[in-house]
Amino acid sequence: MKKLINNPDNVVRESLEGMTIAYPELIKVHFDPHFIYRADAPVSGKVALVSGGGSGHEPMHGGFVGMGMLDAACPGEIFTSPTPDQMLEAIKQVNSGAGVLNIIKNYSGDVMNFEMAAELAYSEGIPIFNSLIDDDVAVKDSLYTQGRRGVGTTVLAEKICGAAAELGYNLQQLADLCRRVNLNGRSMGMALTSCTTPAKGSPTFDLPDEEMEVGIGIHGEPGRQRLPIKSADEITEMLALSIIEDSAYSRTVREWHQDQGEWVDIELIDPLFEKGDRILAFVNSMGGTPSSELYIVYRKLAEICQKKGLNIVRNLIGAYITSLDMQGCSITLLKMDDELIKLWDAPVKTPCLRWGT
Amino acid sequence: MKKLINNPDNVVRESLEGMTIAYPELIKVHFDPHFIYRADAPVSGKVALVSGGGSGHEPMHGGFVGMGMLDAACPGEIFTSPTPDQMLEAIKQVNSGAGVLNIIKNYSGDVMNFEMAAELAYSEGIPIFNSLIDDDVAVKDSLYTQGRRGVGTTVLAEKICGAAAELGYNLQQLADLCRRVNLNGRSMGMALTSCTTPAKGSPTFDLPDEEMEVGIGIHGEPGRQRLPIKSADEITEMLALSIIEDSAYSRTVREWHQDQGEWVDIELIDPLFEKGDRILAFVNSMGGTPSSELYIVYRKLAEICQKKGLNIVRNLIGAYITSLDMQGCSITLLKMDDELIKLWDAPVKTPCLRWGT
Repeated sequence: MKKLINNPDNVVRESLEGMTIAYPELIKVHFDPHFIYRADAPVSGKVALVSGGGSGHEPMHGGFVGMGMLDAACPGEIFTSPTPDQMLEAIKQVNSGAGVLNIIKNYSGDVMNFEMAAELAYSEGIPIFNSLIDDDVAVKDSLYTQGRRGVGTTVLAEKICGAAAELGYNLQQLADLCRRVNLNGRSMGMALTSCTTPAKGSPTFDLPDEEMEVGIGIHGEPGRQRLPIKSADEITEMLALSIIEDSAYSRTVREWHQDQGEWVDIELIDPLFEKGDRILAFVNSMGGTPSSELYIVYRKLAEICQKKGLNIVRNLIGAYITSLDMQGCSITLLKMDDELIKLWDAPVKTPCLRWGT
Repeated sequence: MKKLINNPDNVVRESLEGMTIAYPELIKVHFDPHFIYRADAPVSGKVALVSGGGSGHEPMHGGFVGMGMLDAACPGEIFTSPTPDQMLEAIKQVNSGAGVLNIIKNYSGDVMNFEMAAELAYSEGIPIFNSLIDDDVAVKDSLYTQGRRGVGTTVLAEKICGAAAELGYNLQQLADLCRRVNLNGRSMGMALTSCTTPAKGSPTFDLPDEEMEVGIGIHGEPGRQRLPIKSADEITEMLALSIIEDSAYSRTVREWHQDQGEWVDIELIDPLFEKGDRILAFVNSMGGTPSSELYIVYRKLAEICQKKGLNIVRNLIGAYITSLDMQGCSITLLKMDDELIKLWDAPVKTPCLRWGT
């Protein structure tokens, strides 16, 4: 297996050990159960943001813990949901009394475990809200997901809500903001190659030399279609148009009602992209694709957006939500407004996203 | 070929087009000849820093153009030196009158062409100095190099000298500083896989499934030895000890004497690492290796440095000097002092390295 690892069983732990040694001024790591948290947590008076999910998508989420973004991140084993007790410990570690917003990618295991953790936290008197990210337009229902999967918009929601929490937004305001970011964000990804988990040691799925998978999930879940490899421009167009021309997506989401202490089903509908919209364009590497290729994708994406009357006002280009060593990319477009732009621009200081500090 | 590209002949141009669209507030790109330069260049009264080299090592160098780092970068075709006229145009574009420092990785083509460009610039009345980086301890003399190759220390020199230029160091002071960074920096890399250039479309060299190349160059040049793949800890130890236990390296380097308008040979010797040294530890991905694995390397590196009495005071972990999609890593250790630490910490704002702004 071509990986810089020791024992496959220790990959997550050793990677966390490296992170905590590398950034002692920013983060600490709690082991057994594992979670990364802000070195200065709990931050007095601030609502805490917690996220988590399977490992293998680095730098998400642990690389985004710090001032202006997450207060804690719970890494599961590779491509495996973290556990409710792990989440509960993280929540308790970072709660200042102002409550905790959990930001959750829509994968069945993550959702189930974060719901359990929220109930446990509530029973301990912690104000809590679970916010779901389900932005992947590729497919409805997938290998590990009911509804749409949660992907690139998660990174943007963590940044934007993290900034808002620093500015003193309360739990309900943050929940509303996170829901709004999710509704306004859409993503789609593609793979040129499979990825190799340390446990398996060989590619998790088979993708022949001349083929690509369009609409792939971040664990290698099947996408929309398998096609002969096309040019970067054609691939970018497939992803971008799938996002821009996506029709209204309506679904029912469970949200926690703090006052009643119970789950309530609410109906959500994504707004459509419209001419004149201001957007943030996010081009993401699946892990093994170098940045030079991302700029070739961005070049075409900018051209498509311009033709569609979408005005790119901010961008993010790099490897932020990955699938181990998978080659490929994803595109996320997020409708922006003055508030979101201000929050995006606000200072952030984490291991893997930093500006203004 | 599994790449996000269009026509292999247009990879460099289209990637540059993407960059200039992505960061209009930071950089501009001049085409034919190609160079990336600061949007606000020339910066009045400031010595300008120029670098360059073959493409395929992104984000180096173009991703490091901006406030506090480079004023211009000249990308050649993939793994091919830029040309003297390209360098001269870049030098003229960013020279404010205070002169230009060229930072050059030690590859024969780069050195020859930057020497020619320096002579041309001098003949046009531009104060000029060429600073060589030759920090790779793996081998002396290589496929494209006389002496040691220039690798990871280049990134650190560009950051540190870029900060000094902002603070008003003059050309001679910057030349002295860059030479000092080079002498105090040592690197070594390894590859788990080969890389694939767009022009060839297949791996540039053959590396069997169970083997790795230790001491690899950033174009896939042969290293010290080919071995069965070892654990991350063993690999880290091989690289780190090769660097830390490297004996004094002495060589003759050509430097330009501005007053006389001629080249002068000077003798340089790298100082040894000693117990109690403060160091910057840089763990770099060759492009295809995800950040989670870099932290496993950093974990062991920190342990080795501690045992050797080397005190890591700063670090950099990520993909900064790459070989397209190659999997593997390199380690660079740089002896620090108060001045270098202050310059490292100074604000920087480039597409791919940013803090404090």
